[in-house]
Amino acid sequence: MRLKLTIAYNGSRFRGWQSQATRDTIQDYLEAAFAEITRTKIGVQGSGRTDAGVHALGQVAHADVPAGKLSGPAWQSALNACLPKEIRILRATRAQPGFHARFDASGKTYIYRICNASFLHPMELGRAWHLPGPLDASILAAGAALLTGTHDFAGFAANRGHPPASTVRTLHRIALARKGAILTLRFEGDGFLYKMVRLLTGALVRCAQGRADLSFISGLLSAKGARKTSFSAPAEGLYLVRVHYEGK
Amino acid sequence: MRLKLTIAYNGSRFRGWQSQATRDTIQDYLEAAFAEITRTKIGVQGSGRTDAGVHALGQVAHADVPAGKLSGPAWQSALNACLPKEIRILRATRAQPGFHARFDASGKTYIYRICNASFLHPMELGRAWHLPGPLDASILAAGAALLTGTHDFAGFAANRGHPPASTVRTLHRIALARKGAILTLRFEGDGFLYKMVRLLTGALVRCAQGRADLSFISGLLSAKGARKTSFSAPAEGLYLVRVHYEGK
Repeated sequence: MRLKLTIAYNGSRFRGWQSQATRDTIQDYLEAAFAEITRTKIGVQGSGRTDAGVHALGQVAHADVPAGKLSGPAWQSALNACLPKEIRILRATRAQPGFHARFDASGKTYIYRICNASFLHPMELGRAWHLPGPLDASILAAGAALLTGTHDFAGFAANRGHPPASTVRTLHRIALARKGAILTLRFEGDGFLYKMVRLLTGALVRCAQGRADLSFISGLLSAKGARKTSFSAPAEGLYLVRVHYEGK
Repeated sequence: MRLKLTIAYNGSRFRGWQSQATRDTIQDYLEAAFAEITRTKIGVQGSGRTDAGVHALGQVAHADVPAGKLSGPAWQSALNACLPKEIRILRATRAQPGFHARFDASGKTYIYRICNASFLHPMELGRAWHLPGPLDASILAAGAALLTGTHDFAGFAANRGHPPASTVRTLHRIALARKGAILTLRFEGDGFLYKMVRLLTGALVRCAQGRADLSFISGLLSAKGARKTSFSAPAEGLYLVRVHYEGK
């Protein structure tokens, strides 16, 4: 039976999603929990990686488990009993046959949180990027408008292993909201390249700080990877909010 | 010059407010920061203690500093540069002569946060009391109504050192709000006995879980300390939100 898991984690103490020799990643802890319950090795396939320090409010993964052994809610309870408290299974359900957490994903939603105040509130430590000093909201909005749509985002991707077949992605929407000192950038798209949200956020911030013009963003888009930005927003402000599966 | 400090802290890693031989309390870190800046011993007087694990969004303290040396905002920056990131000075201002953070306080506001869901969301670890299972909102409201007003709250106080001269306090308001799984109890009063908010919350929860009748609460009020409840809500859900100074 294929199990679909919806997972939340506070990424602060983990070395990211992807399994490492050090066995201190989210994937490692999930596989260890399955091993503890089933006494067999069960692989966990995520919708994609998240880096060390990045949080998830709705990561999705699948795993093949012995049929009939436990119901979805029973798997949820059993896994949560074995996992560190910083990782929680929000939902465990029987997946459609052939469901694949990565290949079937039709899109993702991320948020990036910025604390725009002279100091970082202690309850926001590890949960937001601390940026004192002015940020021009109208420039942020104009930059977001430039980025929205279908573009070659190669200039907003870090290198990792073999490059993707295509670096064209569609950003359906970048929504900006401010509540007190907390500025939230919400990215909805059909897919994201490696570090793309953090590089987009970094570029938007540079413009909003007046350290670059908006032509910096449009130039990176039209260069199609011939130039790249390396100004990445830090991991701790990034949250994978949702993985979308259309019609599934 | 007497300085009035408004302070926020994440209480998780500290042994509470009050100075200890171990020097790992909020007060200890504040006094160490003053010592680092001034090279002299400066005492910090808080509006009251908070226990290990309790958070503050607006604790208030005062300290006597060398006159004319630094402005309020300069003290704020200097202290924040010396303090652990889990403690931040939100505001530092020149206090009225004779201002006393503890004796001049006319009231306080606390919130207590409960996560009422089958699991504790990872982003709520150390920030809310995890209570799975049903909580009757109408009983919570009825219990809050019983507690509101002027009462002898001796039954809702833990012992610590010499007892207070009077255990009569006025609870101006207990406001209940729910947003998703997070239930917030907001307590506004003219003063609170040791562990009072956590014992009030514990009693309200016991009733809302159906493990006690509301007569448990009214009985404790009328017993005026002849009987006491010891069912305390855990520290991590408690936040000191504000200290009130009327007409100051």
